[in-house]
Amino acid sequence: MTEAFDAVDLIRTKRDHGTLTTPEIDWLVDAYTRGYVTDEQMAALAMAILLNGMTRSEIRDLTLAMIASGERMDFSTLGKPTVDKHSTGGVGDKITLPLMPLVASFGVAVPQLSGRGLGHTGGTLDKLESIPGWRASLTNEEMFAQLRDVGGVICAAGSGLAPADKKLYALRDTTGTVEAIPLIASSIMSKKIAEGTGSLVLDVKFGSGAFMQDYDRALELARTMVDLGNDAGVATTALLTDMNVPLGLAIGNANEVRESVEVLAGGGPADVRELTLALAREMLRLAGQPDADVEAALDDGRAMDTWRRAIAAQGGDPDAPLPVAQETHVVTAPSSGVLVRQDALPFGIAAWRLGAGRARMSDPVVHAAGVDLHAKPGDEVVAGQPLFTLLADDAARFPRALEAVEGAWEIAPAGTEIPARPLVAARVD
Amino acid sequence: MTEAFDAVDLIRTKRDHGTLTTPEIDWLVDAYTRGYVTDEQMAALAMAILLNGMTRSEIRDLTLAMIASGERMDFSTLGKPTVDKHSTGGVGDKITLPLMPLVASFGVAVPQLSGRGLGHTGGTLDKLESIPGWRASLTNEEMFAQLRDVGGVICAAGSGLAPADKKLYALRDTTGTVEAIPLIASSIMSKKIAEGTGSLVLDVKFGSGAFMQDYDRALELARTMVDLGNDAGVATTALLTDMNVPLGLAIGNANEVRESVEVLAGGGPADVRELTLALAREMLRLAGQPDADVEAALDDGRAMDTWRRAIAAQGGDPDAPLPVAQETHVVTAPSSGVLVRQDALPFGIAAWRLGAGRARMSDPVVHAAGVDLHAKPGDEVVAGQPLFTLLADDAARFPRALEAVEGAWEIAPAGTEIPARPLVAARVD
Repeated sequence: MTEAFDAVDLIRTKRDHGTLTTPEIDWLVDAYTRGYVTDEQMAALAMAILLNGMTRSEIRDLTLAMIASGERMDFSTLGKPTVDKHSTGGVGDKITLPLMPLVASFGVAVPQLSGRGLGHTGGTLDKLESIPGWRASLTNEEMFAQLRDVGGVICAAGSGLAPADKKLYALRDTTGTVEAIPLIASSIMSKKIAEGTGSLVLDVKFGSGAFMQDYDRALELARTMVDLGNDAGVATTALLTDMNVPLGLAIGNANEVRESVEVLAGGGPADVRELTLALAREMLRLAGQPDADVEAALDDGRAMDTWRRAIAAQGGDPDAPLPVAQETHVVTAPSSGVLVRQDALPFGIAAWRLGAGRARMSDPVVHAAGVDLHAKPGDEVVAGQPLFTLLADDAARFPRALEAVEGAWEIAPAGTEIPARPLVAARVD
Repeated sequence: MTEAFDAVDLIRTKRDHGTLTTPEIDWLVDAYTRGYVTDEQMAALAMAILLNGMTRSEIRDLTLAMIASGERMDFSTLGKPTVDKHSTGGVGDKITLPLMPLVASFGVAVPQLSGRGLGHTGGTLDKLESIPGWRASLTNEEMFAQLRDVGGVICAAGSGLAPADKKLYALRDTTGTVEAIPLIASSIMSKKIAEGTGSLVLDVKFGSGAFMQDYDRALELARTMVDLGNDAGVATTALLTDMNVPLGLAIGNANEVRESVEVLAGGGPADVRELTLALAREMLRLAGQPDADVEAALDDGRAMDTWRRAIAAQGGDPDAPLPVAQETHVVTAPSSGVLVRQDALPFGIAAWRLGAGRARMSDPVVHAAGVDLHAKPGDEVVAGQPLFTLLADDAARFPRALEAVEGAWEIAPAGTEIPARPLVAARVD
């Protein structure tokens, strides 16, 4: 078969600040999936894209081509609006867990196809697998049945979605080209659009514990993804949320499930509740229910009821005790005063080193491992009180975790005020 | 073994406009040669270098690391100065052939380790292989003996020189990263420095038939290479020469040898003689003979004598008839006037399509194939006179060759003046 284009010509086009056409991008993604365009060619192109950018239409074409590389799901037979949420990932970000049942309790279908964690940001499936019996992998039939019967589902994305993205993502990881906004945006959005949701809310994080530490870059990513979703016919909005401080008091797997259940019971840390409510309002607005009383659904048990049914539908026992760490190490306040700093990234790394995350996709995670925080920035503390507890199955893991959080928190004299930082900094639509 | 660095960190450094250190570059080249740094990682890095550049010290480090990846020759035992020439390649560029014996006839050692052609620029070894019996491959002992006995040698570069460069060059070719000046400069100079020459003259070409079409880019390349040579202890200068028009009247293999012999006999086209003399003066100046009368050595047969001995030393018969094309096609002037344009690149492509060059390194070349020019820009022509002759072993090759030169030449009314363009446009030292 004669190839329609030459890979080197296309690389040169991006290298020289040109624009690729729709047929060129279609060919490129197809030829890369087939293995005709090589990894080294794609790596050179990815670097050219990272440094020279892509136009809005190129990003749209790339996203559509990656969707076309695999299967596409269709939820239209459900007969109800579908809405999904995607977070760019942060430390202690368990929001999907209370959010899915909360939104689903309003009669909206919430197909939350999720992934596993790599590096210091945890994975939703890893967290849920702390629940005895719970299964991440469902057949399409099981997923549809659960969406119909329970209203919401959190499960593993099928491997048939956007295989080109899967291949490209693995390549970017080893070639220093992860940080290209056009590639991040098309990677996320190709999977989300292929999943067939009718609308989508993005939680784009910025700050020390986020993938995009810089606010302006996070805003650019949000803008790019929102445009991409809307261009592809998926109603999309984004919230820009602060990830300088861990979200909630639990960082890990089982402890994040526990905290999520507290939020579903109407309690939980204020920030986790606040973000869950903000994202739920955004999702329900896109699903045609702008006036839904989401606070009531948390407080009166409707969300909890949906949660329990969803967990049970996937073989999990919502009442089973969650795994508990065999070893703990408590760090106490060396002085009295105000906790003025608690940096997300080092605490995320500590949890990772304790076993809550993985370095390679084939590694297991330790469900009971992580960090429990006992104070948040702004809280008054007294000398000797526990500040945070490290959780692990092996005490040998504590030294390197402690090393990670060295200098990552700070106590200032009593009465010190810290500037209020809104959790939701901006909304993009 | 624990690796000293992480490839992704190094890629990120160049991507983010940072500077790599000497140990980082040493490790990178070594790890790439070993296969630990992958082709896709090197491709991403090459693109970052192409777009973001490298500092003078990075280019020097890269060159030295590539030299260190293989063997290095040493001509100091010869007891006489050594001087080499490298051309960036052009159409009809056979200058090495008359230049080597001319310079060697002054008692200077000229180890001219050469390559084969790929694409529209010919290869010196391909040209010389037109001579019956001539062998391109010599052992190191044969090469040293010839340098001692004859004074000059043109032969194939051993495969042990700068193997990292060989690997990187092949990668650049398929990833759109050939045009990075730091990579071009370090590729050329690593081989030339590893060859052990004491001094080096570069013929950096610009114009339509050159690799670097743009004068300013060619100047930048020349400046980079001259600095690199001098930094590495090899006295290096460069001439920037015009390659908008083919050099001489012969483009091919056997016909270029024939033209070279004419120059060695004191005749030949004016431009070939001029450039041969200019480069010879430059080489002899570096070898400590600034006042050498190079014209006399061409005119009195000394250069020819060295040529005959060099050819014979490599098994060639300097008196044997050269191969002649089985098929010829003459293009005549459609009108009388002045030939005002003769673009190098299309004529180079025509010679290539006639069989004088190759598309893949494994292809053979047809020694008798090429183009003989009968007029040069500025010449008056009369309607019906031959303008150029296509030479091939198969008449089926003529149509695509004619297509290549379509519109590549132009006859203007008699009396039209064309601006004089100096062949040697600048000198860099």
